[in-house]
Amino acid sequence: MALINKDRIEKLKSKASDLLNRTIDQHVTLAVTGLSRSGKTAFITSLTNQLINEGNNSQLSFFTPVHQGQFIAAKRIPQKNIHITRFDYDNSMAAFVNQPPSWPEPTHGISELRIAIRYKPKDSFLKYATDMATLTIDITDYPGEWLLDLPMLNQTFEEWSQQTVDLLLTSPRAELSRDFIEKVRTIDPFQVVDESLMAKLAQEYTELLHRFRNDLGLSVIQPGRFILPGELAGAPILEFIPFANFSELDANEYQNASDDTFIGMLRSRYVEYKERVVRKFYQQHFLKFDRQIVLADCLSPLNKGPESFADLKQAISMILESYSYGQSSLFSRLFSPKIDKLLFAATKADHVTQDQHGNMVSLLNELIYQSKHQLNYDAIKMKTLAIASVKATASGKSLHQGQQVPVIQGRRTSDDKTITVFPGSVPKKLPNADYWKESHFNFINFEPQQSISAHECLPHIRMDQVLQFLLGDKMK
Amino acid sequence: MALINKDRIEKLKSKASDLLNRTIDQHVTLAVTGLSRSGKTAFITSLTNQLINEGNNSQLSFFTPVHQGQFIAAKRIPQKNIHITRFDYDNSMAAFVNQPPSWPEPTHGISELRIAIRYKPKDSFLKYATDMATLTIDITDYPGEWLLDLPMLNQTFEEWSQQTVDLLLTSPRAELSRDFIEKVRTIDPFQVVDESLMAKLAQEYTELLHRFRNDLGLSVIQPGRFILPGELAGAPILEFIPFANFSELDANEYQNASDDTFIGMLRSRYVEYKERVVRKFYQQHFLKFDRQIVLADCLSPLNKGPESFADLKQAISMILESYSYGQSSLFSRLFSPKIDKLLFAATKADHVTQDQHGNMVSLLNELIYQSKHQLNYDAIKMKTLAIASVKATASGKSLHQGQQVPVIQGRRTSDDKTITVFPGSVPKKLPNADYWKESHFNFINFEPQQSISAHECLPHIRMDQVLQFLLGDKMK
Repeated sequence: MALINKDRIEKLKSKASDLLNRTIDQHVTLAVTGLSRSGKTAFITSLTNQLINEGNNSQLSFFTPVHQGQFIAAKRIPQKNIHITRFDYDNSMAAFVNQPPSWPEPTHGISELRIAIRYKPKDSFLKYATDMATLTIDITDYPGEWLLDLPMLNQTFEEWSQQTVDLLLTSPRAELSRDFIEKVRTIDPFQVVDESLMAKLAQEYTELLHRFRNDLGLSVIQPGRFILPGELAGAPILEFIPFANFSELDANEYQNASDDTFIGMLRSRYVEYKERVVRKFYQQHFLKFDRQIVLADCLSPLNKGPESFADLKQAISMILESYSYGQSSLFSRLFSPKIDKLLFAATKADHVTQDQHGNMVSLLNELIYQSKHQLNYDAIKMKTLAIASVKATASGKSLHQGQQVPVIQGRRTSDDKTITVFPGSVPKKLPNADYWKESHFNFINFEPQQSISAHECLPHIRMDQVLQFLLGDKMK
Repeated sequence: MALINKDRIEKLKSKASDLLNRTIDQHVTLAVTGLSRSGKTAFITSLTNQLINEGNNSQLSFFTPVHQGQFIAAKRIPQKNIHITRFDYDNSMAAFVNQPPSWPEPTHGISELRIAIRYKPKDSFLKYATDMATLTIDITDYPGEWLLDLPMLNQTFEEWSQQTVDLLLTSPRAELSRDFIEKVRTIDPFQVVDESLMAKLAQEYTELLHRFRNDLGLSVIQPGRFILPGELAGAPILEFIPFANFSELDANEYQNASDDTFIGMLRSRYVEYKERVVRKFYQQHFLKFDRQIVLADCLSPLNKGPESFADLKQAISMILESYSYGQSSLFSRLFSPKIDKLLFAATKADHVTQDQHGNMVSLLNELIYQSKHQLNYDAIKMKTLAIASVKATASGKSLHQGQQVPVIQGRRTSDDKTITVFPGSVPKKLPNADYWKESHFNFINFEPQQSISAHECLPHIRMDQVLQFLLGDKMK
């Protein structure tokens, strides 16, 4: 016994702990996407910022590992998929650090960021094995439109065309789309295709999608890759359109149409798009996500009107379709995603007064639970939150007609003036016709309020609850 | 016999011909690339233009199928790989059709174009089977730098680093590279890597590559994807650099360095780049090419000086490495490319007087045949030509010191003035030190001379010989 000295025992213990440490290291892949310019870049920047600067003025009381003192430290580490663009945290943080601060540049396409969190396991079996454990988080940032493309996997070209043309012919898209649809209707679908006409039509359709998104503030933009083509810019796979005259086609003739006819080329390109773009994203990324955060700006659509709001609702319904299993399943169980938690966050909560946050959540819940695509609650845990990734306003009270009313104060984007305002009430339920007539809500864009140093924590609303839902259970 | 009437016999004959027609259709994949801004876009535009407008004032006397009246017509048809950008022929032609005409915008990355040629088979066995045959041509346009990357497949990170650092420390790169190399030398290769430092160094190296190409007019730019990143922009796979201190590294320590050290990360990213970028291009495209055209501008390097010229020579040597088989083979026979014809074309022949064309070809031949990478001539047929894809000058004679000297006339790019000039003699052999001292050559950039209609043929020099070499044997 004397041969094994204390020092050696310590070494052995440390070796055993190292070994166990390796086996208990955990890993989670967080997918972040957004609808209606909801502030994905600000969200990922803030989430990273809160974790790596924890301890410096951080406000994460609802994040249990911090609250209970288990959290040791977090740092960015090199990502695994090095052929994917790295999420540019430093540049995004620089926007908040600058004087005056501004919102960071939005990302295009997909990007990744990896964070390692060191923590002390507490009430799990891990505490007997080791003093320290590591949770590795892979954050994948991708455009909301890619998520909206997934239901295409279950649609034929005919089904997709009919759904899309219906959408195009409904307000608010109808006015912008009319000429385009008229033009498509004049084309003989069985004529030998003129590829340059096809390219021109696809370009016009793409311009429509840009206008739907930018001018009308709509969320349902399909096919998503048309507006963010990346390396597919100029490739024929992005040159197809929905066909407008299916009701007048002879089914047999359609089935037998060769690829060099107008309709045949539309169909074959749609199929290639599904296989090479949508299914590729599904297999290479979506299948590997553990947890999904969908950011939605409900306030801008509330401001824009009933049609923009209805479009957000449809987008949420399309997203839920990707997670619903069972009889009407989009994906077979064999190839189903492994996501076990889904967070819908209504962003820009700092753009309304605090007393409205409850209503923001109720409203988001209504948007979700009225969807026909119900989740299997055994498989996926869902949550809704009203958050501000980076808080841009201060809240207070103001005297209005003899009464104390809640207000917010911030630097207005349009004229860079600091204003104090009550932006209005957020409806608790899906607004009806009366609500829209009276136009209660006055959404104002604000710039970030005060610049901070790169090692300080960004001010936020409920990012700790976001962290708790997404990571808390992995750090017990 | 009377039951089978003449009409029916004709129909049967036509049916048989249709059937045979299908079986004798031929296909060829032409790969087009270029060194030193050699005018790829103008070349592909002109080649397509000559084919599809054949008959309208075309000048293709050396293209046998036209000369012998077999050529019927050619047209653009939809390409096969619809996820690849389409070569934008219409936009490129528009540049020549505009008043005043200009050179088309250069392409970025890879693009494709498909042309079908109808012709009457003549002296092959085909003439007994059918009256008409189709040759389908797939033109693939890709950056010369991708071709220069192929030898990396055969190099370890150490070999590549040493070769690249040698190049960086040699004139004319040395002056621009010195600070960068100094900085790399101060880094401890076994320290835990700082990913943002790595990103910064890679960015500086990329800026150097841009300056080598744009300011110094050099051809050897590696890794090629660094200057044309496409969808890999911002991805860590494009964030590595050559390591400058291999001679001082302990071999064992290097072998055992983990991926989170500076040198370990460099090595692993280099390997990923080879696999995910270089090998992917090799397998998805290069292996499928039937014929390769390499365009080289020998005149600008001649003008820029001996170092720019030596760099062109090295680039040609690296290209030939990709085609050389045998003992020192880059690729095993199993995965060897199937290219059977390789054309090196010295472009911008219209920028010198006609009497110099012979010298242009001799010079190009010297560049090629002094390469240590000799081709196996049984496997690959090679040709060199001096061409102008689109002829921008008129040639004539002028009286100079009592003698008739050949001159060219054109619209000078720098000041848009029409000038008449003798740009100088092109050396017949690789120029020696004396040549460079005397500086014989005065290269001037010219704009396209006269605009034409979209259905006319572009003026050219020896595009018919290009067509004959690349396609003539397929249209017998």
